[in-house]
Amino acid sequence: MIDFTFQNPTRIHFGRGAMNHLESECRALGATRVLLVYGGGSIKRTGVYDQVMERLSGAQVWELGGVQPNPRLSLAQRGVALCREHDVELVLAVGGGSAIDTGKAIANGACYDGPLWDLFDGAATNTRTLPLGTVVTLPAAGSEMSNSCVLTRDEDLCKRGRNTPLNFPVFSILNPEFTFTLPPFQTACGVVDIMAHMMERYFTRVSHVELTDRLMEAALVTVMRNAPLVMQTPDDYDARAEIMWAGCLAHNTLYQTGRVGDWASHKLEHELSALYDIAHGAGLAVVFPAWMRYVLPRGGAPKLAQFARRVLGVTQEDDESAAREGVERLEAFWQSLGLGTRLKDYGIDGRNVERMAKRCTAMVGGTAGAFVVLDEAACREIYRLAL
Amino acid sequence: MIDFTFQNPTRIHFGRGAMNHLESECRALGATRVLLVYGGGSIKRTGVYDQVMERLSGAQVWELGGVQPNPRLSLAQRGVALCREHDVELVLAVGGGSAIDTGKAIANGACYDGPLWDLFDGAATNTRTLPLGTVVTLPAAGSEMSNSCVLTRDEDLCKRGRNTPLNFPVFSILNPEFTFTLPPFQTACGVVDIMAHMMERYFTRVSHVELTDRLMEAALVTVMRNAPLVMQTPDDYDARAEIMWAGCLAHNTLYQTGRVGDWASHKLEHELSALYDIAHGAGLAVVFPAWMRYVLPRGGAPKLAQFARRVLGVTQEDDESAAREGVERLEAFWQSLGLGTRLKDYGIDGRNVERMAKRCTAMVGGTAGAFVVLDEAACREIYRLAL
Repeated sequence: MIDFTFQNPTRIHFGRGAMNHLESECRALGATRVLLVYGGGSIKRTGVYDQVMERLSGAQVWELGGVQPNPRLSLAQRGVALCREHDVELVLAVGGGSAIDTGKAIANGACYDGPLWDLFDGAATNTRTLPLGTVVTLPAAGSEMSNSCVLTRDEDLCKRGRNTPLNFPVFSILNPEFTFTLPPFQTACGVVDIMAHMMERYFTRVSHVELTDRLMEAALVTVMRNAPLVMQTPDDYDARAEIMWAGCLAHNTLYQTGRVGDWASHKLEHELSALYDIAHGAGLAVVFPAWMRYVLPRGGAPKLAQFARRVLGVTQEDDESAAREGVERLEAFWQSLGLGTRLKDYGIDGRNVERMAKRCTAMVGGTAGAFVVLDEAACREIYRLAL
Repeated sequence: MIDFTFQNPTRIHFGRGAMNHLESECRALGATRVLLVYGGGSIKRTGVYDQVMERLSGAQVWELGGVQPNPRLSLAQRGVALCREHDVELVLAVGGGSAIDTGKAIANGACYDGPLWDLFDGAATNTRTLPLGTVVTLPAAGSEMSNSCVLTRDEDLCKRGRNTPLNFPVFSILNPEFTFTLPPFQTACGVVDIMAHMMERYFTRVSHVELTDRLMEAALVTVMRNAPLVMQTPDDYDARAEIMWAGCLAHNTLYQTGRVGDWASHKLEHELSALYDIAHGAGLAVVFPAWMRYVLPRGGAPKLAQFARRVLGVTQEDDESAAREGVERLEAFWQSLGLGTRLKDYGIDGRNVERMAKRCTAMVGGTAGAFVVLDEAACREIYRLAL
């Protein structure tokens, strides 16, 4: 276990009555001028929008809709302008990771005088942010309790993440009922994203990380047991609740205490979704098994075998067979949720492999990952294994 | 799962270099006037005291030593007086749960004008507290990241707990090396206390709490695997670290999200340690198996069986046998750490059973517990099962 500092100040209101806390949260912040950030029309169809507006009836609300998956810089810039124009006191993001990340970018950007992208490409930093609240409608990104925010620059689809304590929302409202109407594909993509957030941290070279290993195994088993239940019965409150709480904790930085994560699969996927606009979770279901097959003979077998045995019930005794069986079972599980696990399932061929591999390793010393350090050739190989 | 609100703002610095954060924490708080709270002389013998004082060399420090197990109101009152007299800006508790709980009582009391015990018997409440920092030398109570504080009134040994967000320390410093020199008995008592904090939450009548069930099982397995290692090799850093981090998380309120805890065993133990001044963990190792035997035939078998199977590796198929086998294994495990699991092991006979059972159920409607609601007769029976 390596030394660490851990803090997560976000207040979570969870359950059927979670929305009832919205007014008191606004009151506690003294916020009467609110910017509401959301995606397409789904929150209006499901009634979540009305519930939020009812609770905000005592406040002045400006709206910024139209957040899209892999959210864009330009929309966040419009949000920053709105905050400045109207002296907004609270940014309230309603939706999944894209809406929340847009809200984070806006809240930070409103307290920084230069161009917003400065905060994402490392050119500058801010020290203050507007308070951010969230109402979660899609359990996946875990942004509602995380310090991270990912934004995509419109002109070149360059995707950059930024981790800072300023990104922790002040409060987040999670009502599992809000996820009953999610399309099965989105539910499944969310499940993969949640699992991937843990797996990126699970596969580490740091030894003696037993507690966090076991906590993640516990959460992974829980997610895998409940995912089929919600695919079959979308309004199974209890199963939705398990996934939603697991998804929130998956990315809240607790599980990474004392260890170094890998994050190569996320990088590989970011390039994929930048070029093809494939859903993040769907891309991860393609990339992760290929990454596992690549690292398996390169020193990855023991940890992959532990994962296979404890999470997937594999019983093979030798590590390499156990690890291979684990990858197969993981793929089969994601397929059982209706997802493809190969690029060809999404009509993607090999023509951009070189380009993606180059972009993957364009930053930080020309490599990606930490469990196995990947150079450009390794990234190419993983994309090819995913074909 | 029931609705919940969760927040824990405490900042944890963990590892060999954790103490290096003390100066910057004081600076961030603008604290140059510090009250140092600790127990006997052990922190002076182990060098922890010197490390703290070195980091506080830029501050004015007043000292309050002499905290004893089951910490007393009178000492906390002296701390409050010191804070007022010297305009203390930070209370820094160094030690285990007793030192930290004394620190919490002082920090709160310094911001409340009436008698300190008011805050514990529910007669009054405060809205502010002085900032509290902690340096942990005994992994057990989990007070370093909890909202709880337990104090004992000197004249009648009345023990009262108080849970409030004001009790969360601002920061806590956890270096597993500081636990190398703990006597085996204290290490073992700490392990029991850590396990009990999870078991009190684990045994609930609330259904569909799969994630938190599994997280606690993961942590319990980790603690049970590492406890024998530290008993054998006191300076096993990695095993000490697993126990220390598990102990901190065990009581930080994460595991109780969405459920109702039981806490009868803690109540039963509080009366025991009030009368006999037995160590809290030692008392729990006596009370918990007796409590389990009592609740087993009263609707407790299914959950006890799940615990036995997932935490203790029991394979019996019918719940009642599995549950019974689980209790035996738990007792055997605690005995293997050198602890007694019966009152007679501590020379305690049945003469005070009636008195303790009466005190146990003196508050809140004359009952204790929630998994199985205990009346006075039930408490008597459990004490007798523990003889």
